[in-house]
Amino acid sequence: MYRQKRFLLDEAELPRQWYNIQAEMPNKPLPPLHPGTKKPLRAEDLFPIFAEECARQELNQTDAFIDIPETVREKYCSYRSTPLVRAYELENALGTPAHIYFKNESVNPLGSHKVNSALAQCYYLKEEGMTNVTTETGAGQWGAALAYAARVFGLEAAVYQVKISMQQKPYRSMIMRTFGATVEGSPSMSTRAGKDLITKNPAYTGSLGSAISEAIELATTTPGCKYSLGSVLSHVTLHQTIIGLEAEKQMAMAGEYPDMVIACFGGGSNFGGIAFPFMRHNFTGEHTTEFIAAEPASCPKLTRGEFRYDFGDESGYTPLLPMYTLGHNFHPANIHAGGLRYHGAGVIVSQLLKDGLMRGMDIPQLEAFDAAMIFARTEGIIPAPESSHAIAATVREALRCKETGEEKVILFNLSGHGLIDMTAYDSYLSGDLQNYNVADEEIARYLQDVPTMP
Amino acid sequence: MYRQKRFLLDEAELPRQWYNIQAEMPNKPLPPLHPGTKKPLRAEDLFPIFAEECARQELNQTDAFIDIPETVREKYCSYRSTPLVRAYELENALGTPAHIYFKNESVNPLGSHKVNSALAQCYYLKEEGMTNVTTETGAGQWGAALAYAARVFGLEAAVYQVKISMQQKPYRSMIMRTFGATVEGSPSMSTRAGKDLITKNPAYTGSLGSAISEAIELATTTPGCKYSLGSVLSHVTLHQTIIGLEAEKQMAMAGEYPDMVIACFGGGSNFGGIAFPFMRHNFTGEHTTEFIAAEPASCPKLTRGEFRYDFGDESGYTPLLPMYTLGHNFHPANIHAGGLRYHGAGVIVSQLLKDGLMRGMDIPQLEAFDAAMIFARTEGIIPAPESSHAIAATVREALRCKETGEEKVILFNLSGHGLIDMTAYDSYLSGDLQNYNVADEEIARYLQDVPTMP
Repeated sequence: MYRQKRFLLDEAELPRQWYNIQAEMPNKPLPPLHPGTKKPLRAEDLFPIFAEECARQELNQTDAFIDIPETVREKYCSYRSTPLVRAYELENALGTPAHIYFKNESVNPLGSHKVNSALAQCYYLKEEGMTNVTTETGAGQWGAALAYAARVFGLEAAVYQVKISMQQKPYRSMIMRTFGATVEGSPSMSTRAGKDLITKNPAYTGSLGSAISEAIELATTTPGCKYSLGSVLSHVTLHQTIIGLEAEKQMAMAGEYPDMVIACFGGGSNFGGIAFPFMRHNFTGEHTTEFIAAEPASCPKLTRGEFRYDFGDESGYTPLLPMYTLGHNFHPANIHAGGLRYHGAGVIVSQLLKDGLMRGMDIPQLEAFDAAMIFARTEGIIPAPESSHAIAATVREALRCKETGEEKVILFNLSGHGLIDMTAYDSYLSGDLQNYNVADEEIARYLQDVPTMP
Repeated sequence: MYRQKRFLLDEAELPRQWYNIQAEMPNKPLPPLHPGTKKPLRAEDLFPIFAEECARQELNQTDAFIDIPETVREKYCSYRSTPLVRAYELENALGTPAHIYFKNESVNPLGSHKVNSALAQCYYLKEEGMTNVTTETGAGQWGAALAYAARVFGLEAAVYQVKISMQQKPYRSMIMRTFGATVEGSPSMSTRAGKDLITKNPAYTGSLGSAISEAIELATTTPGCKYSLGSVLSHVTLHQTIIGLEAEKQMAMAGEYPDMVIACFGGGSNFGGIAFPFMRHNFTGEHTTEFIAAEPASCPKLTRGEFRYDFGDESGYTPLLPMYTLGHNFHPANIHAGGLRYHGAGVIVSQLLKDGLMRGMDIPQLEAFDAAMIFARTEGIIPAPESSHAIAATVREALRCKETGEEKVILFNLSGHGLIDMTAYDSYLSGDLQNYNVADEEIARYLQDVPTMP
């Protein structure tokens, strides 16, 4: 019997708009606050840091659909649509009655979903007359995507990469340099924020929060240069909704609709990207899909964090964001899923979680790699350690279906491949990987520095 | 104006047969000779080493099309069709009137075209009752593909990887191990062939020829185990014709037909894979396409080798093959394009070259990386060092079109991506890469060990 495994869209069918969930969610996110005045943030407050169009998108709570600029859509066409794949081999290996689909965002030259927003942000920066762009990166998926997008639009890129990730995954900084970007390990001595962190703790190997501080400082002190963020913020997630909008059409081609949508969770952009276009059909009551964000057990802001106004970075340069957080000074363990080592969740996701419209699931590092190995050996794709958290959550749910006999339709986002993360697999195969636990007291201690909600 | 960039086929349109050029070429290849009796080889002579069906395909000079087994075609569907891409950005950067297309074989989970034959060979081995498979690999693209295919069909895989490549590209052996394969650096102490080579030269870091010797020895001394080759042989190239057969349909979608087809050349499988389905239209006089095989200047068998009966491996275990060769003891320089470090060309290509139906083009290492950088920074894909030779040849021809004003249609095969080869790019960016010249006397010396044609 002929069973179609991959579903692709013609270029003409690629979405022409992104989906802005802020316009349709039952309770809007609380406003971000200006770090100085503590007043609700206006788009203009963000203009010195971000592309102006991105700043407007960030706070747009009225337009449910926002046009993708034609130039950006043309660049999307060089690698999109990405395949929706039915994971028959994984289903067989698990012996589950569930139907498992994944959206394969690893199939683009940069190897992850990150390029979807990098292209949009660099396009707007160029249009607005900028010459330079700077950013932070963890594992380096975002940094590689930004380095490429900057090259596409003729911008000079400077990337601060979390030092531990730079050491774990040396190939990624080489990729960024191949595209012409400058790369610095963070914390570095090239910014005040970096110097302060190193002075306080010379052995500190960084976090996304510290790298963000350095990049923002560079952007605000360099003419012609603005900052670009790879996740967390609402405009980044907006750009990523191309994933879910495509997936919706592709699931229809497969004749199914997901009962569950699963993605890994760092700052929320790949989760929101695949989830939000489906979630809007929950808002109308048309569907009752479950949404699961898989986070590392060692950095559990969704499952064990608190809803507070907190900074997005380690040095307190960003607006105060209403978010589930572990505290902006939280130092996550050195897990290989560098892209998930972030203390907070974006404001939209935080509101949705608060309202019970989605849930978090925490995955220990070893369970993520166990799932990654099953996936690699069945579907033939070595997943990124980040994406492996989504696979582990999928395996948990598929095995639950095996117990109950339910034929649930599960869709997860394979946000990236793991070819640059092979040292992590090597450690796993050698038995050197471990789980990291976070004590309640540790979380409480970091949260002491964070004001309770006003 | 809307310009389509990528062309893809529906699963239903994927070819159902491979193309066997042996049945249609004007002069058939001379017969391989049994290494013991020196008599023309029969398929049965190869049964102890290869899958029997592969041995029959190897010597089949009558059937122009050979059915792809349904199971293999189903596995192809998990990543095929691969995109045919119009390289608008590269054209712009070069300022050429040429239309440049590339077939993107890097877009599969293993990162290269190699999996097309690995799946076929492992399928036949399993069907014929084997439990184990062994092979050689250079840069590791083939080893990774075989490790995955063996896993798909439930075979145990043992891979001998050329020692220098193992050191240059450590991630590839990790990939093979992730799929469950055993990997040994070659020459190793685990075979007589390996021991002899190490004894003769303890510092020798291997070649594809030495790794082939070790794998064949393991296959012929292990019950239930056969050998699988990643290039050179006619049945491997047969499996790779899926590339050109797809490309033919995709070029028709784009409304063009190639004036030139270009591929890099190690043993000939990716070259034959994309070229042969187009070449048959030259045989009928319908087209006059040019075919260019891009080889490294440091391993120039097509442009400076001689047509002789020579061994396919370093220790003389294989049949004697009528091939353009530098001598089976030729030690190629340690260029990063490990997959092109092979002394000879397959028998079909050798005959075609002798008959003037194609040509070789030798590319110095630095020119290959110059071209790779242009390609990465325009098309956003970091190419494998092997594929970069095809890009360099394409750049040469496209710049020639710029001089003459000809709007030639050039199609090249992007056989793989270079994400596992980032140390090579790092060396290039640091200015540490060099060209290697081969003196005429060196080639003459190695050819002394090779008998002239009978």
